[in-house]
Amino acid sequence: MADVAIVGAAGYTGQETLDRVLRHPELTLVAVGSDSLAGQGGAALDPRLAQADLPAFVTNADALATPADVTILCLSHEAAAALDAPDEGIVVDLSGAHRLHDAAAYERWYGFAHPRPGSLGEWVYGLTELVPETGRLVANPGCYATATLLALGPIKDAIDRDSVVVDGLSGMTGAGRSLKASSHAGAVLENVAPYRVGAHQHVPEIAQLLGFPVSLTPHLLPLRRGLIATCNVRSNGSDLRSLLEEAYAGSEVVTVLPEGVSPELARVQNTDRAEIGVFDDRFTGRTMVICAEDNLGKGAAGQAIQNVNRALGFEDTVGLRLGGVLV
Amino acid sequence: MADVAIVGAAGYTGQETLDRVLRHPELTLVAVGSDSLAGQGGAALDPRLAQADLPAFVTNADALATPADVTILCLSHEAAAALDAPDEGIVVDLSGAHRLHDAAAYERWYGFAHPRPGSLGEWVYGLTELVPETGRLVANPGCYATATLLALGPIKDAIDRDSVVVDGLSGMTGAGRSLKASSHAGAVLENVAPYRVGAHQHVPEIAQLLGFPVSLTPHLLPLRRGLIATCNVRSNGSDLRSLLEEAYAGSEVVTVLPEGVSPELARVQNTDRAEIGVFDDRFTGRTMVICAEDNLGKGAAGQAIQNVNRALGFEDTVGLRLGGVLV
Amino acid sequence: MADVAIVGAAGYTGQETLDRVLRHPELTLVAVGSDSLAGQGGAALDPRLAQADLPAFVTNADALATPADVTILCLSHEAAAALDAPDEGIVVDLSGAHRLHDAAAYERWYGFAHPRPGSLGEWVYGLTELVPETGRLVANPGCYATATLLALGPIKDAIDRDSVVVDGLSGMTGAGRSLKASSHAGAVLENVAPYRVGAHQHVPEIAQLLGFPVSLTPHLLPLRRGLIATCNVRSNGSDLRSLLEEAYAGSEVVTVLPEGVSPELARVQNTDRAEIGVFDDRFTGRTMVICAEDNLGKGAAGQAIQNVNRALGFEDTVGLRLGGVLV
Amino acid sequence: MADVAIVGAAGYTGQETLDRVLRHPELTLVAVGSDSLAGQGGAALDPRLAQADLPAFVTNADALATPADVTILCLSHEAAAALDAPDEGIVVDLSGAHRLHDAAAYERWYGFAHPRPGSLGEWVYGLTELVPETGRLVANPGCYATATLLALGPIKDAIDRDSVVVDGLSGMTGAGRSLKASSHAGAVLENVAPYRVGAHQHVPEIAQLLGFPVSLTPHLLPLRRGLIATCNVRSNGSDLRSLLEEAYAGSEVVTVLPEGVSPELARVQNTDRAEIGVFDDRFTGRTMVICAEDNLGKGAAGQAIQNVNRALGFEDTVGLRLGGVLV
Repeated sequence: MADVAIVGAAGYTGQETLDRVLRHPELTLVAVGSDSLAGQGGAALDPRLAQADLPAFVTNADALATPADVTILCLSHEAAAALDAPDEGIVVDLSGAHRLHDAAAYERWYGFAHPRPGSLGEWVYGLTELVPETGRLVANPGCYATATLLALGPIKDAIDRDSVVVDGLSGMTGAGRSLKASSHAGAVLENVAPYRVGAHQHVPEIAQLLGFPVSLTPHLLPLRRGLIATCNVRSNGSDLRSLLEEAYAGSEVVTVLPEGVSPELARVQNTDRAEIGVFDDRFTGRTMVICAEDNLGKGAAGQAIQNVNRALGFEDTVGLRLGGVLV
Repeated sequence: MADVAIVGAAGYTGQETLDRVLRHPELTLVAVGSDSLAGQGGAALDPRLAQADLPAFVTNADALATPADVTILCLSHEAAAALDAPDEGIVVDLSGAHRLHDAAAYERWYGFAHPRPGSLGEWVYGLTELVPETGRLVANPGCYATATLLALGPIKDAIDRDSVVVDGLSGMTGAGRSLKASSHAGAVLENVAPYRVGAHQHVPEIAQLLGFPVSLTPHLLPLRRGLIATCNVRSNGSDLRSLLEEAYAGSEVVTVLPEGVSPELARVQNTDRAEIGVFDDRFTGRTMVICAEDNLGKGAAGQAIQNVNRALGFEDTVGLRLGGVLV
Repeated sequence: MADVAIVGAAGYTGQETLDRVLRHPELTLVAVGSDSLAGQGGAALDPRLAQADLPAFVTNADALATPADVTILCLSHEAAAALDAPDEGIVVDLSGAHRLHDAAAYERWYGFAHPRPGSLGEWVYGLTELVPETGRLVANPGCYATATLLALGPIKDAIDRDSVVVDGLSGMTGAGRSLKASSHAGAVLENVAPYRVGAHQHVPEIAQLLGFPVSLTPHLLPLRRGLIATCNVRSNGSDLRSLLEEAYAGSEVVTVLPEGVSPELARVQNTDRAEIGVFDDRFTGRTMVICAEDNLGKGAAGQAIQNVNRALGFEDTVGLRLGGVLV
Repeated sequence: MADVAIVGAAGYTGQETLDRVLRHPELTLVAVGSDSLAGQGGAALDPRLAQADLPAFVTNADALATPADVTILCLSHEAAAALDAPDEGIVVDLSGAHRLHDAAAYERWYGFAHPRPGSLGEWVYGLTELVPETGRLVANPGCYATATLLALGPIKDAIDRDSVVVDGLSGMTGAGRSLKASSHAGAVLENVAPYRVGAHQHVPEIAQLLGFPVSLTPHLLPLRRGLIATCNVRSNGSDLRSLLEEAYAGSEVVTVLPEGVSPELARVQNTDRAEIGVFDDRFTGRTMVICAEDNLGKGAAGQAIQNVNRALGFEDTVGLRLGGVLV
C-alpha cells in the first residue's frame, strides 16, 4: 500500500482523482486538500462521501506538507506553477504547469510567466502509452492533447506533417468547475461554440511530443463528459491502421476499432478507456483517425492513476475504471 | 400571390417548408401532400395547425398533379429521382436527386442508379448567394454542402485545394424523421458519433461547385437543430477574411462575424440565417473558416424559399425567418 | 407609436424583452439600460445586434430617467424593490418586487425586507388572461406562477383546494444569467435536481390569485428554455375541461389541447404561447391539468408585451412571437 | 458459482443485465439469447464485447432451453407472458408479465389478455428492500414502480391515501430500444412530453404493494438514463423522515439524504443505487418524498441482480454497480 495526498480535490479533476484513489486497492488516502472545504468532511464535497472512509479536508498547503508516497496536484495552471513540489515521493501534476520544456510558451499560451522556468526539465510527460520513460515528477497530459496524441503518436513519422488538421469536441467538464459566462448552462445547452480557435494551450504539448504542431479547432458541446479528437492526415504511403493496431495491441486502455466502426462517446464516458477509429477518405485519399475518450478519465484522472501505477511498479490498469457495457 | 404545392409535407424538411410558406405574404398554399396523412387535416401533423388556414392533406401524387406556380418536393432522394417533375411552373427539389450532373455519382454515393440521368442537366443548383443563374427546375443544396460552400465558395481560388479539411457537426433533425437505430434518442443523447466518414453524399455537390473535393467528417450531435462546418484551409496568400466580407456585404442571410467572434449555433437555430467566423491558426499559419446555420433553415427550407423568391422575382428575404435576439 | 425604455437589458428577461420591443410595430426603443454595458453598442450584448437600429446602452439610472411612455424593469427582485418607479408613464416590472400585497412575505420568501411596503397596493398583477383590471404600474407574473395559474385560475372554484399538487419543470434560463454553481453546465447537463422544494417564492403570488396555496416542487431540467406545470387536482364534480375551454376560447396565446393530446415544450419554445392538456386519472378519479410555456416568453417577455399592449390600448397579441410549426 | 442464461439480451434491460452478470464474481454466463443476433459474437451487440469472454448469441428459445441455475428474462411484456418458464432454477422476469396477481389488469393496462392467468400467483414481486419473501419465480419491478415504492412503501400506513400524487421524470432508455416515433431523437431533444397520463401500467403494481393507487403523471425527459419520482403526500401525523431513515438504515443501495439535500440524477446514473430526499412543504403542510434512481440500474438490472443474489443466498450487493463519486 502507498500513501496518497490529493491537492485541490474539489475541482473536477480533483474529484475524479479522489474517486479513483478511493477505489484503488493499493492506495491509501492520507490527505485531501481544498482551501474552500478545509475543516469539513467528505459530504461537503458530495453527499455520496458521507459514509466513505476519508480524512477531513485540509488546506492545500497542509495536504502538500503531508508526507506521502504520492502527491497528486489538481490545481489551476498558475497555482501549480507557483508551488514548491514536495522533495520526496512521486508527484503527478494534472495542470499544464509542467508539461512544456519551453518556459516562454507559458507566457504566450497560458497567459502567465512561468515562475520556475529552470525546473521544467525535471518533469516527465506522462502519456504512458507513448512515453516509455518515467520519473519522480510527472506532468499529466491535457485532455485534447491525450486524444490527439493517442491518434497521432504512433503514426507521426508516417504522415505529411503539413497536412494535419484536428477538430476537438469536448464535454463541458473539460472547462473546469469555476464559474464563468461560457460555462453557464444557458450558454451551453442546445448550443455549440468553437473557442480558442488556432490558439489553444494544448497545441504546444502536442507539438513537443510529435515534433511538429497541428491545426486544432476546439468546440465545446452540450455534453457532461467526453472528448473526441478527429484527426485528418495524409499518409506518406504507410498503412496507418496497421501502425495504430500494433501500437495498442494488447492494451486494455486504448482500443483500435475494426474497420467501419466509429468511436462513440457513450462507450468511453465514465471510463478511463479510449477508442480509435481509422477511416479512408474516398474523395481525397486522406485518412481520418478519430479518438474518443472521457476528458476526466483517460484525459485526466485515469491517466494520473496510470502514472502512479507505473511510478510505484503496479500493473498499468489497477484501480482504473475500465467500463463494462452499459447502454 | 403565387400558388404553392408541397409534396412530402410530413417529413422534417416538408414541415419546415410548410411553416415558411404559411408565413410568406406572397404565397398561397394550394396543396399539401403526404401519403401517410392523406385525407386528414393539418392537426394530424401538428396540433398547432388546428386553427391554421390549410387545405387537407392529399396524396403526394395528387399534390404533384395540382396546378401550381411552384411545386416544392420534400421527398427521399430515391423517390424524388423517380418522379416526373411537373411540366409547368417552378419546381424546387429539397432532396439530393437533382443536384449532381454526373449520374454515375448517384450509384456510388446515394446507393441507387439514377432513373433519369438525361434530365440532370436541366436542373440549377440553388445556392443563391453563390450561383447567380436560375431556372424553372431548382435543386436545393444539402445541409452540409450549404454550410461548407458558404464558407469556401468565395475563397475557392485563394486556397491550396489539397489542404482543405472540413468537420461537420449536425443536429439530429438532419438525419430525417424516419425511424432508424442511429436516430433513436437512446443512441443520440449524451453521445457523439462520426458517421459516413470520408464517404458522405454531400461531398460530390461541394466538389461540383468548388471544382475540387474536400475531406469531410460528419458528426451527429445530441442537438435538435443546427449545423456547423469547420473548414480548415491554407491560404495561397490572399486575405480570406476580406474575400468573405466582400462576398456577403449587405446580405441579411449570411453574416461574417468580426475578428475574434465565434459562430454559435444558438444564434442561428430556428432561423434561415448563417454566420461565418474566420480565424488564423497561430501555430501553423492555416485559416479556419467556420460556418453555422440551421440545418432545416438555411440548410433546407429557408434556402428553398430564397429559391422560390428568386424564381418568382420577389425580394430575396421575404418570408424568411431572420431571427431576432432570443437568448 | 409609443416610446419604451428597458432597464436591465443584459439579463435573460431583459434581452428577451428587447427582442420583442424591436419587432413590435408600435413601439420605439428610446433607452436601453445596463450597468455592465453602458457606453457600448448593441453588439456588446449580442453580435446579432450589430446592424440593429438601437440606441447605445446607458446606465440603468439613465434609462430610468429617460422620459418614455413605457418603462420595463428587468432587474433583480431586490434592485427593483429599491427603485423609485417613474412618476409618469406605464411601468412593467418583470421581477417579483411588486407582485405581493403582503410586504411580510418578501422577508419570508424572497429573503429581504421590502423597502417600500406601502407602495405594494398600487401595483396590478399582470396576468392578462385572468386579471381583467389594469393600471399604470404592472407587476409581471413569475414563470412558474404563470403556468400554474393558467392551468388553475379558471377552475379554482371547481376543485378541492386541499388536493392541489403542482410539479414544475423548468429550463435553465429560468434561473437567470448570473453565475452560480447550480447554473454551471457541469451541474445541469444530463442531470435533474429539485430545488426550493416546498419553499418557492412563486407560491405566494399563486395563492394570492387563487385564494389558497398549492404544494409546488420545482425541478431544473437540462433544457435551454421552456417550463411545464403539471397540476394534479380533485374536481368537486365540475367538468374542468369545459371550464378551461371556455376560459381560453378564441385566445391566440393559450390553447386548450384536444382530449388525448399532451402539451410539449418543443411546440411553445421560442414563442409567447402556452398549451394546456387535461387528463382524467383512471386510477384515482383525479384530474391532471398540464400547462407548457416558454419561461422567457409567456413566462416573462411575452406577458410583458401583453401588459404593454393592454395599457396602451393595442391589440393583445401585437408584437408577440406566436410561433409557426417548426419541427 | 452459478450458471446464468439471459433471454432477450439485445434490448436495453438485457444489455444492462449482461453488463452486471459479466462483472459478478459468482455468476457464469452460459447462454445469451437474442433472436436478432443469434449466431453472432458479442461484438455484434457492442464493440466493447469483442474481447469479453462470452458465449455466442443463440436464439431466445435456445437460451431458454439451456440448463442454468438462473434464467433472466429481458423480453417484452407480451412475449414474456406467453413463455413457458423453465421448470428448474431461478427465473427473474424483468418485464411486467408476472408482476400483477389480477390477470384482468393485463387487458386493461397492458393491452393484451394474459395467456396464463393461473400462473400469476406463483410469482414473487422482487422489490428486495420492501418484500421479505422470495421464491423460485421472481417478477422484477417496473422502473417507475421501484422509485415510487422505495419512497412510499415505508410510509404507506402513515399518510392520507387519498392525498398521494406522483410525478415521474424518466430518461429515454426507459422507453426501450425498439423504434417508435416518440423515441426518435428529434422528438426527444430539447423537449418534455407527459405521456400515458393517469393510465400508466406501473400504477397497478404500486397499488398492489401499497394497498391503494396513486395518481401518476410520467414525463419523458431528454436524458439518456435516470428516473425521479416526486411523491407528494399528507402525513397522518407521523414523522415520515424517521420512518424512511429506519427502513433504509444500513442499506448500501438506498440512501435517505440529510435534511435540505435534494436527490440528483447525476449521482445515481450508471449505478444500482437510489437516493431519497424528504422535504416539508412550508405552504400546505404536505411532505415531498423524492426518489432518484437509474431506470436501468435499481429500476431494472441492478434490482434483478439483487433478486438473483437473494435467491442464491449471496450478499445483497455483490456484483452491483455502487458507483463512486464521479463528477
